[in-house]
Amino acid sequence: MAAETLSPAPMPSAGGTEASQLYDAIIERQEAKGRILLVCEHASPHIPAAWQDLGLSGEARLAHIAWDPGALDLARALSQELDACLVHAPVSRLVYDLNRGPDQISAMPARSEVYDIPGNDAILAQERWARTRAIYLPFHNSLQAELARRLALGLRPVVVTVHSFTPIYHGKPRAVEFGVIHDADPRFAQAIVDHAPMGLQTELNAPYDAADGVTHSLRLQATPYGLTNAMLEIRNDLIATRPAATALAQRLAPCLTAALAACERTEK
Amino acid sequence: MAAETLSPAPMPSAGGTEASQLYDAIIERQEAKGRILLVCEHASPHIPAAWQDLGLSGEARLAHIAWDPGALDLARALSQELDACLVHAPVSRLVYDLNRGPDQISAMPARSEVYDIPGNDAILAQERWARTRAIYLPFHNSLQAELARRLALGLRPVVVTVHSFTPIYHGKPRAVEFGVIHDADPRFAQAIVDHAPMGLQTELNAPYDAADGVTHSLRLQATPYGLTNAMLEIRNDLIATRPAATALAQRLAPCLTAALAACERTEK
Repeated sequence: MAAETLSPAPMPSAGGTEASQLYDAIIERQEAKGRILLVCEHASPHIPAAWQDLGLSGEARLAHIAWDPGALDLARALSQELDACLVHAPVSRLVYDLNRGPDQISAMPARSEVYDIPGNDAILAQERWARTRAIYLPFHNSLQAELARRLALGLRPVVVTVHSFTPIYHGKPRAVEFGVIHDADPRFAQAIVDHAPMGLQTELNAPYDAADGVTHSLRLQATPYGLTNAMLEIRNDLIATRPAATALAQRLAPCLTAALAACERTEK
Repeated sequence: MAAETLSPAPMPSAGGTEASQLYDAIIERQEAKGRILLVCEHASPHIPAAWQDLGLSGEARLAHIAWDPGALDLARALSQELDACLVHAPVSRLVYDLNRGPDQISAMPARSEVYDIPGNDAILAQERWARTRAIYLPFHNSLQAELARRLALGLRPVVVTVHSFTPIYHGKPRAVEFGVIHDADPRFAQAIVDHAPMGLQTELNAPYDAADGVTHSLRLQATPYGLTNAMLEIRNDLIATRPAATALAQRLAPCLTAALAACERTEK
């Protein structure tokens, strides 16, 4: 993986890092019968009070750097269309980006696109561990438990992470509307592209790909169990309102169902 | 992966599967300064009372099918030699084999080598999930937390799992004494073989390999973070007593240290 990692720091005591609160994943439709399990790591711009807005202006706190605008609305509508369990995060990616490992600088970035994040500047090792313990571990443990439950019951869940991206990045407009990104196994992502709705500018591994370190959740949760998986990226101007997100979910749900059926035909 | 997986079963309620007790990992030398983190999934033959000896005779309950005899003694001695944190399991592999995913038949085998396991015959889906929740998730969550702590602190832990194997399997003697098994990344395992102590019959990927589904812990815990890792397998007649295990650890520790140094020289 090309992403930057941390340099060693002195190791403090395990007992000295108690965070006062744990931020568990939020699970909706836990009893859903659909094969697909939806994950939305960047669902919320919420910065808990302990982190004092990370020193950001109100505008920055609601910008795409803090969350994936529209992604939770889209994921909820997909959850309804597909009868799919949805696991989403309660805390802004700027406090801890759940789609990054604790050794990645971008898990707690000091700068994101054109914004400085004062509260993430020169974070001490102890604070990195406190956020990892309070946010990263509870989320991924809850997600793993949902997957393990289905595996123990003889089901084979399919992991689909739901993201949105900004239409303009570093001043450059992005033409792609729907990106489908894969980790080690490209099959499901390619099938989704093959079955994408008409009229939606769709690309494989865009606007970025696994080499940019963006498939951590898939790598951690799906790949070790050999689960079919993909990461969806929707340009956020297409899902700026709840009705728009619902309408897009109604177009994407049949695409996901058809892509999964195509993958499973090939496997037989 | 070639290993058998389960067929679908009806999905019971998430709320109906409360196991009364969770069996956490046991962590020794948590503050150790060494790079290597040792894992011993088959450390104990203990079958908690709730599982009523799984219907086994006393001889079977202490045989290699129930645990890896000598592995914990070896791991503890290595932990001392290497100043390494050690994470080990409190429950027999016959209740739940922590080196298998919840979808693997061999996580709760109905037969192991020449022994039938009556308590694992025709396990209901609900019981599979109860054991997964009580044993698999607490162990792997604890191990992940130890690794995540080190990653957040800018350290790069090296994951080494410690196992033992029976000298006679299905009536056939095994000549190999020290097997080193790798998952996706062969480098550290190969370096350990290259630096193995003189006079110890050492082989790569023996007496079995990743295709047999034996690298689950590495795949789940080390591979997603790109951590250097290997699985050690010692023939259990060589570590049948604590002094023998200690003596072997004193031979293996310099081998692991040299192998790690060789890997890191190559990376630079």
